[in-house]
Amino acid sequence: MEEIRRIKRELIHRGKIVNFYEDTMSLPNGNTAVWDYIEHKGAAAVVPVTKEGKILMVRQYRNALERYTLEIPAGAVNYLGEPKEECAARELEEETGYRAGTLEWLMNVNTTVAFCNEFIGVYVAQNLIPAKQHLDEDEFLNVEEHELEELLSMVYDGTITDAKTLAALLAYRVKYR
Amino acid sequence: MEEIRRIKRELIHRGKIVNFYEDTMSLPNGNTAVWDYIEHKGAAAVVPVTKEGKILMVRQYRNALERYTLEIPAGAVNYLGEPKEECAARELEEETGYRAGTLEWLMNVNTTVAFCNEFIGVYVAQNLIPAKQHLDEDEFLNVEEHELEELLSMVYDGTITDAKTLAALLAYRVKYR
Repeated sequence: MEEIRRIKRELIHRGKIVNFYEDTMSLPNGNTAVWDYIEHKGAAAVVPVTKEGKILMVRQYRNALERYTLEIPAGAVNYLGEPKEECAARELEEETGYRAGTLEWLMNVNTTVAFCNEFIGVYVAQNLIPAKQHLDEDEFLNVEEHELEELLSMVYDGTITDAKTLAALLAYRVKYR
Repeated sequence: MEEIRRIKRELIHRGKIVNFYEDTMSLPNGNTAVWDYIEHKGAAAVVPVTKEGKILMVRQYRNALERYTLEIPAGAVNYLGEPKEECAARELEEETGYRAGTLEWLMNVNTTVAFCNEFIGVYVAQNLIPAKQHLDEDEFLNVEEHELEELLSMVYDGTITDAKTLAALLAYRVKYR
């Protein structure tokens, strides 16, 4: 294949959590095209497993979908370049009120590669230690405990649709159970 | 939980494949906040299984990641509201040059729920019939055939990172193999 090259990147709008750019691309067929690019600073997510083997999940309202979702705990990095494992440990504790006794890397997820650089490091947390939930000021969610098999049935009946949650639960199932 | 309500949605920029909005939200704690919202028209993706049980994958350059990725065939709907199954069948044929003899719904994926409504219907295609590859003018990719177990090892070593691909391959593995 010939090379695809970016000739120019222009910032169109700086948002609260993502920035919008127009990228001018030089294509292998000699054409020039303008592509959308959404910049995200990155995130981490956690599959928290209780000593009974249940999974801690969070239920929250998602404005983009106009409905509540059931997801694994997750959140954006505090600063560009924050280690994903640090971010994962913090988000787990903030959202669920449990600290990870052990935290193992499970997988890397790029959520939507056609237009966005968002990258999520996904971890499995075990040997959970009770700590204190402390949500961000604009964060509202409920924590729920579910059996893995129940969550998998929610994957296949279309109840769970969040990409990082789907990938993480299935990857945990294939690797650990 | 109190209600989270959207008070206002303002279009900031209309892009080529996504649009950027600022949503003004009324939060349960009485605060008002401005949240980013990225609008996408939707897509479909396919796990194409050959009669030998191998999976057809596409390798392409992704500007957002500045590298090549290995993904299942996928593409955006041609128009808002296009049936996902129709979109899946078309994208499979356009990208791989194979028509689906049978196409079964596997799962629904919302790629990045914190700020975007993108929704991908994922299907399993079997009984593939040779047809003709016809890529979009600005689309450049190569088709590859892989064993499922080889792809799964690429999930766990961090080679495959695309969210829809991770979710779809793992969901296929758990449900079909």
